[in-house]
Amino acid sequence: MNVLVLNCGSSTIKFQVIATDLEKISANADERLARGAIERIGGEAVITRETGASAKPQKIAAQLRDARAAVDFILRWLCAPETGILQIASLADLHAVGHRVVHGGERFTHSVLIDDEVLHGIEDCIDLAPLHNPANIRGIRTARELLGAGVPQVAVFDTAFHQTLPDYAYLYALPYQFYRRHRIRRYGFHGTSHRYVAYRYRQMLGIAREATKVITLHLGNGCSAAAICEGNSVDTSMGMTPLEGLVMGTRSGDLDPAIIDFLSEKEGLSAREVESMLNKQSGLIGISGLTNDMRELMAEAEENQDRRARLAIDIFCYRARKYIGGYLSAMGGADAVIFTGGIGENAAEVRAKICRGLEWCGLSLDDEINREMIGRREGRISTEDSRLAAYVIPTDEELLIARDTVRCVEGVKQRY
Amino acid sequence: MNVLVLNCGSSTIKFQVIATDLEKISANADERLARGAIERIGGEAVITRETGASAKPQKIAAQLRDARAAVDFILRWLCAPETGILQIASLADLHAVGHRVVHGGERFTHSVLIDDEVLHGIEDCIDLAPLHNPANIRGIRTARELLGAGVPQVAVFDTAFHQTLPDYAYLYALPYQFYRRHRIRRYGFHGTSHRYVAYRYRQMLGIAREATKVITLHLGNGCSAAAICEGNSVDTSMGMTPLEGLVMGTRSGDLDPAIIDFLSEKEGLSAREVESMLNKQSGLIGISGLTNDMRELMAEAEENQDRRARLAIDIFCYRARKYIGGYLSAMGGADAVIFTGGIGENAAEVRAKICRGLEWCGLSLDDEINREMIGRREGRISTEDSRLAAYVIPTDEELLIARDTVRCVEGVKQRY
Repeated sequence: MNVLVLNCGSSTIKFQVIATDLEKISANADERLARGAIERIGGEAVITRETGASAKPQKIAAQLRDARAAVDFILRWLCAPETGILQIASLADLHAVGHRVVHGGERFTHSVLIDDEVLHGIEDCIDLAPLHNPANIRGIRTARELLGAGVPQVAVFDTAFHQTLPDYAYLYALPYQFYRRHRIRRYGFHGTSHRYVAYRYRQMLGIAREATKVITLHLGNGCSAAAICEGNSVDTSMGMTPLEGLVMGTRSGDLDPAIIDFLSEKEGLSAREVESMLNKQSGLIGISGLTNDMRELMAEAEENQDRRARLAIDIFCYRARKYIGGYLSAMGGADAVIFTGGIGENAAEVRAKICRGLEWCGLSLDDEINREMIGRREGRISTEDSRLAAYVIPTDEELLIARDTVRCVEGVKQRY
Repeated sequence: MNVLVLNCGSSTIKFQVIATDLEKISANADERLARGAIERIGGEAVITRETGASAKPQKIAAQLRDARAAVDFILRWLCAPETGILQIASLADLHAVGHRVVHGGERFTHSVLIDDEVLHGIEDCIDLAPLHNPANIRGIRTARELLGAGVPQVAVFDTAFHQTLPDYAYLYALPYQFYRRHRIRRYGFHGTSHRYVAYRYRQMLGIAREATKVITLHLGNGCSAAAICEGNSVDTSMGMTPLEGLVMGTRSGDLDPAIIDFLSEKEGLSAREVESMLNKQSGLIGISGLTNDMRELMAEAEENQDRRARLAIDIFCYRARKYIGGYLSAMGGADAVIFTGGIGENAAEVRAKICRGLEWCGLSLDDEINREMIGRREGRISTEDSRLAAYVIPTDEELLIARDTVRCVEGVKQRY
């Protein structure tokens, strides 16, 4: 089954085509046929794409006025003979579409085949993710229009994996009616990534789902931690929105809630404007005043002895370390800490800095192995006798979306 | 030296008179001569007071129109022959006044003798504690007026003990200019309480200040945790204001900052009104919809199987447990967890619930000893072979304020 995986944002679309089916899933033999991204939809769009065969991604520019034009562009490119994807000669060779959907609220606890009712359900969650769900819905409608109602589409939710959180972990200490009335609670995000690396971990080690007790750290431009016990997410750092939790590229993470009104008054901003500042101008870029890119920050701290670049890294790592401790407490210990995401997979120094304070609970890093575990390599980075292990596992949300799509189409229950 | 300790709030004043001096401090022989509280100043005030000799506190009512009238009432009562405090015959027998001051900003890292410059410094911090510092200042001015400028007055700050936090622990991941411009950072509160129990702990065990590595949990109507390493506070859960951190009687503690704007829009409230709701109608009372009193909640959960009372307790304990894990990570382990404050000193079941998830890091509670350690008893509640110990130590902020007052008056450096 050739599955088109779509991740539609407000002005970007990421896509992959993965050839997979139940047999290939079992054999871990899924095949990536193509991938790419379109940015700045609505203006002079920049399109990056590569096929499984091509040596490296190619970039071109084109006028793409909306999501429909962008998906149309992707479909044409996939089918064009000069693209050279042997398995795709026409639209008929795209057998299903898997969509990343940001917010599934409390309704969607698993990936689902999309019908009108599901679509309404996703619309119902717009309130909770006003920036993301509308773009996801547009992607679903466009794909249905261009590929026809006969091609099954599946929604894979960022929030679904965290629906196993117990009430004492997902409820805020607010008047209870706000949970009932406005569905204010911790949802968590990056669910597909946390779920994928927890799955890969037990696959690598050959251990049962029920025997997994790990802390996963997805450290990219967005960052979140999850406590995964017996295969289920039991706590996670992002909350009702992706603003809460760890320090991120441009997001503040945890904060005294009283700061919002204080800043609003001091700076003459509305609460909405303060929130936007917390989302877009805070985190690493806010502290450093330089960049939200961890590589650049590390270079600034190292080569130019930039005090605030160093401070941004220190705060980032300290907060991650505290979350690891918090989740060890939440689960009564763990077997491993797993790093993923752009920073988690590549910034060996950041991993070392986070783990440096964790010797007390038996985590001892193998510095040499850690330094070499970059560039999408996967494996253990702790010493062999470390009581709490540490791993790097490159995430692959698209693969999980493609597999969930196959499972939904085939009517097979998903193993989370 | 007879020290009058004053804790002046907006409509309440708590007071104690403690006879102490450097010798008595060394010998732990401070003597409490009187204590009391006046509530509802500005209307029909309720006055509770007792002397060291009296069997139990006595309650009376009186019209007290302002703080001046209230302090005047206290002074008259202390000196009245029928009160029966032998050491106090007239105002001349009150040798110094120690004030609890809520916010000392970054300026006050220790208790200080109050002069005009200090008073201006406290005024400068009104911005950071608009509800508290003005009442503290009123108390200082009133005491000076009524006792004369010759009686030394000392300010003991709730924030001072936490001024040892490292920058990566006190800075939020906000644009750095907000720290420079508006002094937005983590200050922490309950400093006198955390400092007192950490001091008592090392006194009880006869260990050096530099050898202390403990986590203190002040669980009262307000709740906060502190990580204390080598005698210094290195992290604490309350932030720029007392709203952040643990779940409290009426305060939410940690929260996705995006909830403020969301709630503001949904409920048609201003950011200020949402913040007030987070301070006054959230926490235990918000979740349970019943009460902010832990004893009542425990009774409701136990006797009436009230689901939301149980939930409020569960969330309260779970969050405290996560903070303990976070601070173990922050310090690279600890020797003891110390409970104090109304709940911490008396709710054995809450302590047990918090500790129940901490066996993984070597904390094993002695259930019987724990059950009996209530009603201002102090001591160890973990088993003898517990790798991480747990203690109950009743707090005594007034004693520390009196002692700091003596030290400041005598020009002796405070041992924090």
